[in-house]
Amino acid sequence: MNITQPTLILDKQKCLRNIKRMADKAKKHNLKLRPHFKTHQSGEIGNWVKNFDIDSITVSSVSMAEYFAANGWKDITIAFPFNILEIEKVNNLTKKIKINLLIENIETFIFLNKNLKSKTGFFIKIDTGYHRSGINWDDFEKIDKILESTKKSTKLNFIGFLTHSGQTYHAKSKKEILQIHFDSIKILNFLKEKYIHEFGNIEISIGDTPSCSIAEDFNGVDEIRPGNFILYDLMQYKLGSCSVEDIAVSLACPVVSVNNKRNEIVVYGGGIHLSKEFLIDKNGNKYFGYVVNFQKNNFSLPVKDTFVKSLSQEHGIIKTNPDYISKIKIGDVLGILPVHSCLTVSAMRNYLTFDGKVLGTY
Amino acid sequence: MNITQPTLILDKQKCLRNIKRMADKAKKHNLKLRPHFKTHQSGEIGNWVKNFDIDSITVSSVSMAEYFAANGWKDITIAFPFNILEIEKVNNLTKKIKINLLIENIETFIFLNKNLKSKTGFFIKIDTGYHRSGINWDDFEKIDKILESTKKSTKLNFIGFLTHSGQTYHAKSKKEILQIHFDSIKILNFLKEKYIHEFGNIEISIGDTPSCSIAEDFNGVDEIRPGNFILYDLMQYKLGSCSVEDIAVSLACPVVSVNNKRNEIVVYGGGIHLSKEFLIDKNGNKYFGYVVNFQKNNFSLPVKDTFVKSLSQEHGIIKTNPDYISKIKIGDVLGILPVHSCLTVSAMRNYLTFDGKVLGTY
Repeated sequence: MNITQPTLILDKQKCLRNIKRMADKAKKHNLKLRPHFKTHQSGEIGNWVKNFDIDSITVSSVSMAEYFAANGWKDITIAFPFNILEIEKVNNLTKKIKINLLIENIETFIFLNKNLKSKTGFFIKIDTGYHRSGINWDDFEKIDKILESTKKSTKLNFIGFLTHSGQTYHAKSKKEILQIHFDSIKILNFLKEKYIHEFGNIEISIGDTPSCSIAEDFNGVDEIRPGNFILYDLMQYKLGSCSVEDIAVSLACPVVSVNNKRNEIVVYGGGIHLSKEFLIDKNGNKYFGYVVNFQKNNFSLPVKDTFVKSLSQEHGIIKTNPDYISKIKIGDVLGILPVHSCLTVSAMRNYLTFDGKVLGTY
Repeated sequence: MNITQPTLILDKQKCLRNIKRMADKAKKHNLKLRPHFKTHQSGEIGNWVKNFDIDSITVSSVSMAEYFAANGWKDITIAFPFNILEIEKVNNLTKKIKINLLIENIETFIFLNKNLKSKTGFFIKIDTGYHRSGINWDDFEKIDKILESTKKSTKLNFIGFLTHSGQTYHAKSKKEILQIHFDSIKILNFLKEKYIHEFGNIEISIGDTPSCSIAEDFNGVDEIRPGNFILYDLMQYKLGSCSVEDIAVSLACPVVSVNNKRNEIVVYGGGIHLSKEFLIDKNGNKYFGYVVNFQKNNFSLPVKDTFVKSLSQEHGIIKTNPDYISKIKIGDVLGILPVHSCLTVSAMRNYLTFDGKVLGTY
């Protein structure tokens, strides 16, 4: 690898292993895997996913749907409260492929019912406790209003209830993640029961990577939409969703300064590359990444007692131990495992694989 | 404005006013203004700066130097510890224009002395207390080593001492910023005195926007390199570098959901647009932006008791008051004043001005 500036390195083998693990799990539990492509955002990685008999995906924006539609995907859920200002783009998409939308208020339903040009499926976004978006699961007045209108609609086809239990990201243990997952699917099953007599079928779609990675009970769930599992990152590792060996990306950063007195290394690689997402270690200190070494066709496990302690726009400051720093010289290239790969990918917009291929993103 | 998705809106008039204020200040204090272009990153905004008789700039990477060289700039300081892996690009640049580098260790000096193809000026980067990078100001052994080697070099020309007092960003008051600024220039003047008998002239270059905005004493300083002052942001506002009216950018975000019970608005506009940089309010809560309304040719002052309380990849959650939320409907477009405009610009990579022009960035 001829690295001269911050470069996002992708380990394709880890990626394939991660996809296979989740595809096998979905098959085992008879779930449809509709992976969220907002993490990797890449047409080429999407093609790898296709090889696991996956033909439907999730995206987080209309523009991302356009990109993946152009990459040959024909069944896409836009898992974001529908933005009515983008109706024209959606009408262009629904002419060609199957698009599923998310609705969480009657205003958007009425707008779509009036302005959609093709019959389109939608999920009702349910808030099972994350409190970011979605209708509170017990706000039956709001749910009823949409479902009543659905019966008269020739444009909108109700598919089912969808949630993103993002509260798992704040969980302190695997047990807590499983509890959130369990509560969440219980709620969705309750809603399904409540309304199924009026609608021939109601699907249940759940999304977060921690639940999908850790849980083994998916009672009543039809579809899972994890995204981060293809690359993983330190946040998922900390939550227990993956082992550190599963993390498939690292940011290659040139060393520009070495401070032996402080045991600190300055690398070219900052907030505009990694994003400013951080985690808190057991001593209460922020960290923005772990450090790995590049080997011929992969990267090492994290270096002991070594982490990114701060980030400026282009600088990363790595805190390490005397032993490691004694081996580092200016011009070396270190790898940084990101805290949140979705944001790092979004900042970098390209990957480099170990066989020298550059993969673009949306 | 026909906004359908997150769009970075630039108020050109505010921008010009901000540039003029700093240019006037530099003139008044007989300082060379070498603005840092890492904040705005735009060729077009650079052209506005040119109209204030400014002919030299600062950038934070070699690639950014290439971009601005292509935009006609002929005197560029790359204010980042030199990355030896990019020597080839620098040799291409120095063939055509004047480039100044930053050196903070003898290894980089030796490398440059061997590999540079044209005579090139350099600053020694001094750490006056920020402890990110640079040589500790009292590490005379390191400074001497570089300066001794300089005397024998036919390639490297010592310009002076440069610092970035980034510790001002952690200051709790204007008084504290002024104290840091004062201590910092005292140190640089001390170094100038110490070495001036050996070098005909030694320049002093300082950089951070808080000091340059607030201070009125620049005793002994030759050059200032603020960058953020052209756009400003909430971080600078909080530090006292600017008034909230000076902030020249806001992210236009479509409203996709309104939660009256929680007084929360969900907008399309998240961490991949604004960056995850945050500030802490007086109650200890994080905020990721303030909310403004768009008017014909500008945006309003921040809406009272209204702020971005959290960000996901594409979602922004705005906390507000019952009065404001009662006026908001789905499909409205709100503006968000960013916490850190450098990172928001870097994430967005384009501006839209009120007269409908799209300005690209590097």
